[in-house]
Amino acid sequence: MNSYEHQAQYYETDQMGIIHHSNYIRWMESARIWYMSQLGVDYRTMEESGIISPVLEVSSQYKSMVRFGDTVLIEPEITKYNGVTLELSYRITDKESGELKMLGKSKHCFLDSSGKIVSLKKSYPEYDRAFMAKLKRV
Amino acid sequence: MNSYEHQAQYYETDQMGIIHHSNYIRWMESARIWYMSQLGVDYRTMEESGIISPVLEVSSQYKSMVRFGDTVLIEPEITKYNGVTLELSYRITDKESGELKMLGKSKHCFLDSSGKIVSLKKSYPEYDRAFMAKLKRV
Amino acid sequence: MNSYEHQAQYYETDQMGIIHHSNYIRWMESARIWYMSQLGVDYRTMEESGIISPVLEVSSQYKSMVRFGDTVLIEPEITKYNGVTLELSYRITDKESGELKMLGKSKHCFLDSSGKIVSLKKSYPEYDRAFMAKLKRV
Amino acid sequence: MNSYEHQAQYYETDQMGIIHHSNYIRWMESARIWYMSQLGVDYRTMEESGIISPVLEVSSQYKSMVRFGDTVLIEPEITKYNGVTLELSYRITDKESGELKMLGKSKHCFLDSSGKIVSLKKSYPEYDRAFMAKLKRV
Repeated sequence: MNSYEHQAQYYETDQMGIIHHSNYIRWMESARIWYMSQLGVDYRTMEESGIISPVLEVSSQYKSMVRFGDTVLIEPEITKYNGVTLELSYRITDKESGELKMLGKSKHCFLDSSGKIVSLKKSYPEYDRAFMAKLKRV
Repeated sequence: MNSYEHQAQYYETDQMGIIHHSNYIRWMESARIWYMSQLGVDYRTMEESGIISPVLEVSSQYKSMVRFGDTVLIEPEITKYNGVTLELSYRITDKESGELKMLGKSKHCFLDSSGKIVSLKKSYPEYDRAFMAKLKRV
Repeated sequence: MNSYEHQAQYYETDQMGIIHHSNYIRWMESARIWYMSQLGVDYRTMEESGIISPVLEVSSQYKSMVRFGDTVLIEPEITKYNGVTLELSYRITDKESGELKMLGKSKHCFLDSSGKIVSLKKSYPEYDRAFMAKLKRV
Repeated sequence: MNSYEHQAQYYETDQMGIIHHSNYIRWMESARIWYMSQLGVDYRTMEESGIISPVLEVSSQYKSMVRFGDTVLIEPEITKYNGVTLELSYRITDKESGELKMLGKSKHCFLDSSGKIVSLKKSYPEYDRAFMAKLKRV
């Protein structure tokens, strides 16, 4: 599986002349949604079936600056999954030079439309199997 | 009625060293929602009652640059309203110097949860009266 | 020349369940920068040589809603250019259905590092020729 | 010292019907800049004197959802400072109910215009004293 690609946009810069750090958090989301779709978990379908997946925790370590026009590669990986919560790590590198740009993490749960925690293991075994399969391969 | 106040944030800057032009479109929204609430039309309540108000058109003329830390005043006004569509104009000035920063316009309709156009005049006379009263005073 | 492609991101949605209208303004910028690079005008190089190109005016008419996951095509075109100011139009359509999503316009000038208006015609004839050539072909 | 106040904007929502998690990272920045100015460290002046302060690390734990229209209080505190790097923690609560919304952290360094690390202790003793004084009081 290859990685998610993003070209840094002008509107993502700030007056330091670099990409504003909050945008990496958004890129992690884009990469996560793309990654899940590769595993057969389509986020749009998941939401339409009544589950939302809010972010419980997010963190990032900025290793070097990304500038307007740079293309970065974002590699998400599932690091923990127990049927109820899901954790991922992210590695962002420059596409051209391979230079490390950011290391990140995020943690998620799954809620039904009334806001109650959903066990994917019990209620959505096909999503559970998709995440579990990936976890085992790591 | 006084105007909506906003202090330009660091994350709103771009690498030109000025506020990115897309943010003014967001400020117009903030000012519009604040202005409607002054007229007795609470946007949150409106959405909870099943109406959404999408933007049909938006335009802005940038007159001078806003920089990080500047405080601007945004003055919305209702320019047209016919019971079905609503148009506003916006004037953004620097709070300290009074310098004109932007002139803007937006046009809106009202939709029910099935996406059908709602006539406020027929279905929500209290909102209709609020907009109409303001229009007449202009 | 083909068009600029963008997939609507989750972080671009709002609680109406559609892409927030301010993001289209950002997509117009991405498409404009991409389009200029096709004409041989690299925006990063232009800024490094000391010229910035602020937005003087922007407008958009929203024709139908874009939703999370949709892929849109953005087609910019130069509509006016006189050596000092540049105007473009934009047409956003759904990649799959071809449905019209937005029509937009933007107007730009060129400034040197001291904030003075630059005539590309006089000072940067290679950029001038690139824009002029495109204009003639329209 | 009181806390930084922010009203959650419509453009900050996502299609889950809550404030998108990336915006809290932006709010932390706004609160940090406000907090520093209370300590006598004006970020605009700092940048004009040639220092930038990039974010090295950021993390947040989301405790409960913030919705459109809610007003939150953001309380930054300096947790570590050694003359070269600065760490802060953030606590976001609902203004009305006091409910905890987020706990966050950020880590920063200071760079001169050539990208070299600046020791505030050596080169900007007035900033150093401001941060140190606050740290001692914690």
